[in-house]
Amino acid sequence: MNPAIALAHWGRVGALALGALLFIGSHAQAQTDPLPSWNEGPAKQAIVSFVKETTDQASAKFVPQPERIATFDQDGTLWVEHPMYSQVMYCLERVPAVVKAKPELAHVEPFKTVLSGDRAAMAKLSMKDLEEILAVTLTGISVDQFQAEVKQWLAEAKDPRWHKPFTELTYQPMQEVLAYLRANGYKTYIVTGGGQDFVRVYSEATYGIPPEQVVGTAGGTKYEHDKDGKPFLIKEPKLLLNDNDAGKPEGIHLMIGRRPIAAFGNSTGDKQMLEYTKAGPGARLAMLVLHDDKAREYAYGPAQGLPDTKVGTFTQALYDQAKAQGWVVISMKDDWRRIFAFDP
Amino acid sequence: MNPAIALAHWGRVGALALGALLFIGSHAQAQTDPLPSWNEGPAKQAIVSFVKETTDQASAKFVPQPERIATFDQDGTLWVEHPMYSQVMYCLERVPAVVKAKPELAHVEPFKTVLSGDRAAMAKLSMKDLEEILAVTLTGISVDQFQAEVKQWLAEAKDPRWHKPFTELTYQPMQEVLAYLRANGYKTYIVTGGGQDFVRVYSEATYGIPPEQVVGTAGGTKYEHDKDGKPFLIKEPKLLLNDNDAGKPEGIHLMIGRRPIAAFGNSTGDKQMLEYTKAGPGARLAMLVLHDDKAREYAYGPAQGLPDTKVGTFTQALYDQAKAQGWVVISMKDDWRRIFAFDP
Repeated sequence: MNPAIALAHWGRVGALALGALLFIGSHAQAQTDPLPSWNEGPAKQAIVSFVKETTDQASAKFVPQPERIATFDQDGTLWVEHPMYSQVMYCLERVPAVVKAKPELAHVEPFKTVLSGDRAAMAKLSMKDLEEILAVTLTGISVDQFQAEVKQWLAEAKDPRWHKPFTELTYQPMQEVLAYLRANGYKTYIVTGGGQDFVRVYSEATYGIPPEQVVGTAGGTKYEHDKDGKPFLIKEPKLLLNDNDAGKPEGIHLMIGRRPIAAFGNSTGDKQMLEYTKAGPGARLAMLVLHDDKAREYAYGPAQGLPDTKVGTFTQALYDQAKAQGWVVISMKDDWRRIFAFDP
Repeated sequence: MNPAIALAHWGRVGALALGALLFIGSHAQAQTDPLPSWNEGPAKQAIVSFVKETTDQASAKFVPQPERIATFDQDGTLWVEHPMYSQVMYCLERVPAVVKAKPELAHVEPFKTVLSGDRAAMAKLSMKDLEEILAVTLTGISVDQFQAEVKQWLAEAKDPRWHKPFTELTYQPMQEVLAYLRANGYKTYIVTGGGQDFVRVYSEATYGIPPEQVVGTAGGTKYEHDKDGKPFLIKEPKLLLNDNDAGKPEGIHLMIGRRPIAAFGNSTGDKQMLEYTKAGPGARLAMLVLHDDKAREYAYGPAQGLPDTKVGTFTQALYDQAKAQGWVVISMKDDWRRIFAFDP
């Protein structure tokens, strides 16, 4: 082969190889679906369109990176909340340790009922009883001690239905949304009615969300010194922020100081956060997870004609507001190809 | 020249060129001082050593990136606080507008004194008077309206000595520390006794610190709807966090949820933040700015045998604690080559 023909030959092979690479490249790209656990449909489409229009510089709805704030409720939105919020389970299971330290509580309600282990009686505890249990089990210890105890509990506690640690019962489709948003310059926050200090213990390992990006129901702490003069913070029974309902936008302002442009929830406690998010200018995304999958997870709430369980209430009024205001309702049954990472 | 000689020649030239590039490279690197506004000395050395030992994977004091949290007081640490905190100036200057809206205040103290414009009388206002003025001028308006008003005020207001906007009176050496820490994977926070909502208006443009990384004295807000049903947050006269003294570590826990590993302050109000930072394990950096430069900025406080001005108090006891606990005192006079960006 003379050099010119050789060059032409290699040029052709090169072009073919390049073409093949480009083909494989575009093929691989087409296959890299950022939301593989979502079925095709309006919910998935709403997320993808929103991310595209807010991150494309040529789009009229482009949002500069620092303003890309997305907030997520946790219980029922990012992980399972039935039959009981895991933090409430933590508090109930901590009662014996608290009573050991304060034996006078053993014969006082509601602690007596909790110690009896009588599940039927425990299910009847009032909101006020629960608040009393939360106050006693979540305060009076140092921040460091609390973190260590929650960490240990999470390592051992199991959900009653799947017999798995709670941190494995996160919704895989929502984990994908978190990762997809972050890959597109979004800062993702948890905005939970649950305890801020509780969720911060596992948020980074479980969701890739650092403690400083967790807004939750928060109590005060008090700065003190131990007998060796070493300073520490003790958790006080003083409520600073009830991060539910109107407390969610109020908490977002306190802790973030910017209005989110995307918000995700699943109950009436998230209503104001979604309203507030949607009321800002430009592109906005508001989504609600509807628990309508009894086989793979749970189905509950008045929006489905089921009794109100008091946990993650999705009322008919909330459903109607979502439809009227352009919030997207996510059907777990129809929109999610799988629920958990361990699902096939 | 035969090919072998030619190759050897180019090899030699190449090696020389490479050597020159490497030399220029290392020379250029040696010249890229991250802290050019600092004089060589123990303060600068403490910062550089701390950053090196916490970011070098081979160091015993290496700190993973998510835990690299550095907190900075603002008034007197990042910008000028004399003769008066700029936020207090803002509040005093807003009194006429507030009185216009509520004319009944015109004949009531302390508003009457402020309206008189009598500087000598205003200087005598008590802490209680000031608190009353702050409550009236900082609350009762929406979060959005407040942000717009502060922004406008900052664009027009001038410092009485330099006749420049307050946002130009930041300390260039501290700006360099902020940038140097961020370039090394640190998250920088402002932790100020000043109003959180006030500082958040300009923190990003002025310090490169986004609003969500500003912790400050914070009041509550209330979620409401306007007559068109549009939701907004109104600033309430209800204190949630007094971010001074013990309130600083408490505020850090509330808003960040991690103990900083580096902290910078300049007064007794920063004492607990520095103690708390230093009390954690591993590498720790605690620094205090001493205002000892009357010619280029100000000299004030008991640590220098000067009268207590009530603004940015650096007591002798704080100075002694710094020396005893290994906090580094920064002398503006000796450690800073220049104070402001506009200095020669």
